[in-house]
Amino acid sequence: MLNVGVIGCGGMGRSHIDRITNRTTGAQVVAVADMVDALAQKGAAIAGEACKIYKDEKDLINDPNVDAVFIVTPGFAHVNALLEAIAAGKRIFCEKPLCTTAEDCLKVIDAEVKSGKHLIQLGFMRRYDKGYNQVKDLLKSGNYGEPLMVHCTHRNPEVGTNYDTPMAVTDTAIHEIDVIHWLVGDDFVSAQVLFPRKTKYSHEKLYDPQIMLLRTKNGICVDDEVFVNCKFGYDINCEVVCEDGAIKMPHLSYPDIRKAAHVATEIENDCFVRFHDAYDDEVQAWVDDAAKGIIGGPTAWDGYLAAITADALVKAQETRQIEPIEPAMEKPEFYK
Amino acid sequence: MLNVGVIGCGGMGRSHIDRITNRTTGAQVVAVADMVDALAQKGAAIAGEACKIYKDEKDLINDPNVDAVFIVTPGFAHVNALLEAIAAGKRIFCEKPLCTTAEDCLKVIDAEVKSGKHLIQLGFMRRYDKGYNQVKDLLKSGNYGEPLMVHCTHRNPEVGTNYDTPMAVTDTAIHEIDVIHWLVGDDFVSAQVLFPRKTKYSHEKLYDPQIMLLRTKNGICVDDEVFVNCKFGYDINCEVVCEDGAIKMPHLSYPDIRKAAHVATEIENDCFVRFHDAYDDEVQAWVDDAAKGIIGGPTAWDGYLAAITADALVKAQETRQIEPIEPAMEKPEFYK
Amino acid sequence: MLNVGVIGCGGMGRSHIDRITNRTTGAQVVAVADMVDALAQKGAAIAGEACKIYKDEKDLINDPNVDAVFIVTPGFAHVNALLEAIAAGKRIFCEKPLCTTAEDCLKVIDAEVKSGKHLIQLGFMRRYDKGYNQVKDLLKSGNYGEPLMVHCTHRNPEVGTNYDTPMAVTDTAIHEIDVIHWLVGDDFVSAQVLFPRKTKYSHEKLYDPQIMLLRTKNGICVDDEVFVNCKFGYDINCEVVCEDGAIKMPHLSYPDIRKAAHVATEIENDCFVRFHDAYDDEVQAWVDDAAKGIIGGPTAWDGYLAAITADALVKAQETRQIEPIEPAMEKPEFYK
Amino acid sequence: MLNVGVIGCGGMGRSHIDRITNRTTGAQVVAVADMVDALAQKGAAIAGEACKIYKDEKDLINDPNVDAVFIVTPGFAHVNALLEAIAAGKRIFCEKPLCTTAEDCLKVIDAEVKSGKHLIQLGFMRRYDKGYNQVKDLLKSGNYGEPLMVHCTHRNPEVGTNYDTPMAVTDTAIHEIDVIHWLVGDDFVSAQVLFPRKTKYSHEKLYDPQIMLLRTKNGICVDDEVFVNCKFGYDINCEVVCEDGAIKMPHLSYPDIRKAAHVATEIENDCFVRFHDAYDDEVQAWVDDAAKGIIGGPTAWDGYLAAITADALVKAQETRQIEPIEPAMEKPEFYK
Repeated sequence: MLNVGVIGCGGMGRSHIDRITNRTTGAQVVAVADMVDALAQKGAAIAGEACKIYKDEKDLINDPNVDAVFIVTPGFAHVNALLEAIAAGKRIFCEKPLCTTAEDCLKVIDAEVKSGKHLIQLGFMRRYDKGYNQVKDLLKSGNYGEPLMVHCTHRNPEVGTNYDTPMAVTDTAIHEIDVIHWLVGDDFVSAQVLFPRKTKYSHEKLYDPQIMLLRTKNGICVDDEVFVNCKFGYDINCEVVCEDGAIKMPHLSYPDIRKAAHVATEIENDCFVRFHDAYDDEVQAWVDDAAKGIIGGPTAWDGYLAAITADALVKAQETRQIEPIEPAMEKPEFYK
Repeated sequence: MLNVGVIGCGGMGRSHIDRITNRTTGAQVVAVADMVDALAQKGAAIAGEACKIYKDEKDLINDPNVDAVFIVTPGFAHVNALLEAIAAGKRIFCEKPLCTTAEDCLKVIDAEVKSGKHLIQLGFMRRYDKGYNQVKDLLKSGNYGEPLMVHCTHRNPEVGTNYDTPMAVTDTAIHEIDVIHWLVGDDFVSAQVLFPRKTKYSHEKLYDPQIMLLRTKNGICVDDEVFVNCKFGYDINCEVVCEDGAIKMPHLSYPDIRKAAHVATEIENDCFVRFHDAYDDEVQAWVDDAAKGIIGGPTAWDGYLAAITADALVKAQETRQIEPIEPAMEKPEFYK
Repeated sequence: MLNVGVIGCGGMGRSHIDRITNRTTGAQVVAVADMVDALAQKGAAIAGEACKIYKDEKDLINDPNVDAVFIVTPGFAHVNALLEAIAAGKRIFCEKPLCTTAEDCLKVIDAEVKSGKHLIQLGFMRRYDKGYNQVKDLLKSGNYGEPLMVHCTHRNPEVGTNYDTPMAVTDTAIHEIDVIHWLVGDDFVSAQVLFPRKTKYSHEKLYDPQIMLLRTKNGICVDDEVFVNCKFGYDINCEVVCEDGAIKMPHLSYPDIRKAAHVATEIENDCFVRFHDAYDDEVQAWVDDAAKGIIGGPTAWDGYLAAITADALVKAQETRQIEPIEPAMEKPEFYK
Repeated sequence: MLNVGVIGCGGMGRSHIDRITNRTTGAQVVAVADMVDALAQKGAAIAGEACKIYKDEKDLINDPNVDAVFIVTPGFAHVNALLEAIAAGKRIFCEKPLCTTAEDCLKVIDAEVKSGKHLIQLGFMRRYDKGYNQVKDLLKSGNYGEPLMVHCTHRNPEVGTNYDTPMAVTDTAIHEIDVIHWLVGDDFVSAQVLFPRKTKYSHEKLYDPQIMLLRTKNGICVDDEVFVNCKFGYDINCEVVCEDGAIKMPHLSYPDIRKAAHVATEIENDCFVRFHDAYDDEVQAWVDDAAKGIIGGPTAWDGYLAAITADALVKAQETRQIEPIEPAMEKPEFYK
């Protein structure tokens, strides 16, 4: 049984506490930390009576009964928790992003490499989604040749007024940035953003929709339509066009309904419905991998690559040019 | 140019006049007949100035300028027009049914056989529908083995209050009776009707829906859901299950629309939309076949088989037993 | 933590041991029993070191450390284990069928009712399948009126030579018998079987395919195409046609693949793939229900209804008549 | 009856002669011209005995029995035939492109405007395709708000070795250039081309695939994947993403085939199958419009816009920059 401490008891943190406590096997939440006591109390209540409550994440990290930590604080707070946990030698599940700057990501990578132990898994849950894995398996089958293009959409029914133009990259396209990189096994080298006609539902600080264009080392062209006020649903699509065939990821399955001169099928409205199983499966895999002493999911290095790709896209939003994506270092041997 | 006379200028008759005049090539309507003068006038107006108007169908049939006749009168009136036209040696396109009794069908067959000329094509337009033909081509490809079962639906959004229980056979299932017989190339030997729970939209004289069960000589089992107040659309389905695969006829194609948390595709509401091209294509084929001196579509014998199959189903509606279907004679050599 | 004893360590039993041990939460396998020692050893090995091994199921049932039992023995052996477990007041998960005769089912029902406690859940996993539940939720929404007809297929790629004609009912259609009864909330009153043309892949003792026809008290007509050598896949379909719309259960989702002039989507070959999640979810629900002291899934009474429905279908296979389905008693108040 | 003269009796020319003679109504081919006598003979043979044969297109154009001309010569030869036919006041159906240079297009426009009569329809047959028209009707319904993005694919199974990189624009994307312009009712203002990883099936002079990016005056962003050695089929897709919904054009309909653990549906291999009906319908509409004295299809102005858009894309292939699209003049009042 893996004893987990959860740092950050907001909505996402509590959702992980519930997951570990009630839906996955092999782990239990033994401690929670949150600067806001009311949230910590709520989190602990899900985990059960034996769960300890900390105000300071450092105390939780260094609790000898805690084998592993979940970092579910706001992004800017990740770097300190990560460095502390690496220093304590604790296994880490860190929600995305790794850190909010490329520099901080590099600090974390440096610390992990120096520790000599693979400790960090990043919370890019899509890698555990059944649909993406079906596509990846087909790509690996060798029946379709090399991937040449990937067409994606990331459509949300709507977003709040605090959601602004750069968040189309950092909160939304970030998922395609990681999962497509993983899907085709190739790194991005340049980024461009197109600004189509604005929807009437755009907010003042939000240009919606946008089309993100990414190119990989091997020349694979990825286009990602990010449309966060599409109104009709949470609609994630991904088609990989290869030399010998094209593969389109399926949606979740819903009944076909005949009514009112149409056959209709539901689209979910919500990423937590669409990726419900992926969230469970990523945590279960992380727990199972802990028993084997490995990190099977996205690493700190993947988090760094996602960060610099996002940086390039945000820059491209401003310059409207093709922006290069250049890691500050070669991929460390440690992550190969 | 084939000179056509059209007998019966109701809605269906006028639709054929329009078709011959404006949408198909190689034929023209040179004469029309209808006991109701106003209808005859309407029909002639579509065909153009040169079109003659007859009150009596006999005069039209025997007009030497008329090469071929369309019989689009009510079913009970077909037998006389058919016999007259056979006697006159005119080519005939007869809307379904051939005749309203098996006896009359046999009289017509007898007359055509004795005439020594293939004159009659029956208006079962589905044999010219692209979808059924795609299925038939696949069946003939030999890739799927023998057909074992056929699952059909014949759903209408709604019917008028004059539509009664036997009409579910004679007006509706009659289309599957002919087209499935043609599709699998096999004759029916028995019939049964199931009466599911009635829809609240059933009229007093109408039991709706019904499931028609037919068996062929080779044992192919056909089920046909006839549901004429299904409300949602005109929904024709046909799946042929074979030894080595199953083949499902497509619908007409419509865009996929994403809206309101659903992906939806239209179903037409109307058989004249669904089978628009089939109606045109059956008449064009009949005109083209005339030039070759052949009848390529459903014959008087097919009309007789449809009639006795319908009779058995109507009887089965009353007896709720499995009723045999037994032609009064072997298929004449003439029709082989 | 619910302490479970598993009786029967064949393939299905071991699959449940694995499920309880590794995939569901809240229960553990503390004991196994099998007359074949090697199987018992195998089963125990999955559960872990602390798992006790019994030769005699009675000893397992009466082990005070065992809170609940799984009965996964051959069907004929169920009755004794059920009666013993009821006598011991243990909660029971019994794989289908409840018993192999209606008489034995009644004995078990009598015992459970007299015990005054709801103890038995029957292993009809389809009630926990996401697709069937989506359909049921739509039916319950009230948007589609009353269900009138249900069209099902139960197609297997192939079966072994020991699979014979009655097994098309008792091993295959038995799943639709229970799940459709549950889906529409109505009891069956009559049964008929159609024998279409035989596939060339039928074995000597197997007539394949068959079409099972069932009617409910309210007149809902169910047709179930059972085709166990269809060759192309494990293809479960279910369409419920209602007064105000028709609802078709989806398949599991797989990518659309464009290759060789076709767009193709996989169909699984195997019921354990198709119902993988349903198997897990039924056991998880049973464990969760245990904590609440209820039986939320199919009961002994459902098992009895399935048994007499299967009996009527097997009789109908012989008589080729419509056979009545008449329970020997009213549904006991206990099960309402 | 419209008397048509056909200039150019290659494959496409003969296909139009066959169409006018055998599949559409209201027109007949009374004359053909081709510099290669054997081709002219072949063309005339399709049209029938009364068809005159000319060596020089000028003689055909000025034949007083010719009401209208089809120009189906190679693109570079269009300008002279167009100017001659305008001078003769003959109605014109001109296969794409209008001319091979923007300058020649402007000459033709000037001549037509000065003639004061609408004479020229350009052969962009997709505007007559049922699928595009279904999408356009939905856009016009007002239910979906303004169009913001259009995602297209133009995939061919393969091309010959004479097909080179610029032809991806001038022979292939040219169809999307016209039809999307028409579909959204907006002019293009800039063009960009992306070069993804090359398929192994690229020829030496062909970079395949390419992604064409176009932007309209109103900011609609169009992406068009041009992949002419995709191997799997002729796969035309078009999705219009609007403010209040997204609309995806359907494919032609083919049966669903269950076999070998897949459900598969055919994709055609050939544009003449995919757009078979569109070719017939554009010619029929042109004939019908002639009777009304109007040009209902794409005009010379549309041909000019397509030419300058293609020029910008070809330039963008070289510069890899975003290239502006700037007509040399305002749209003449004549074409509004």
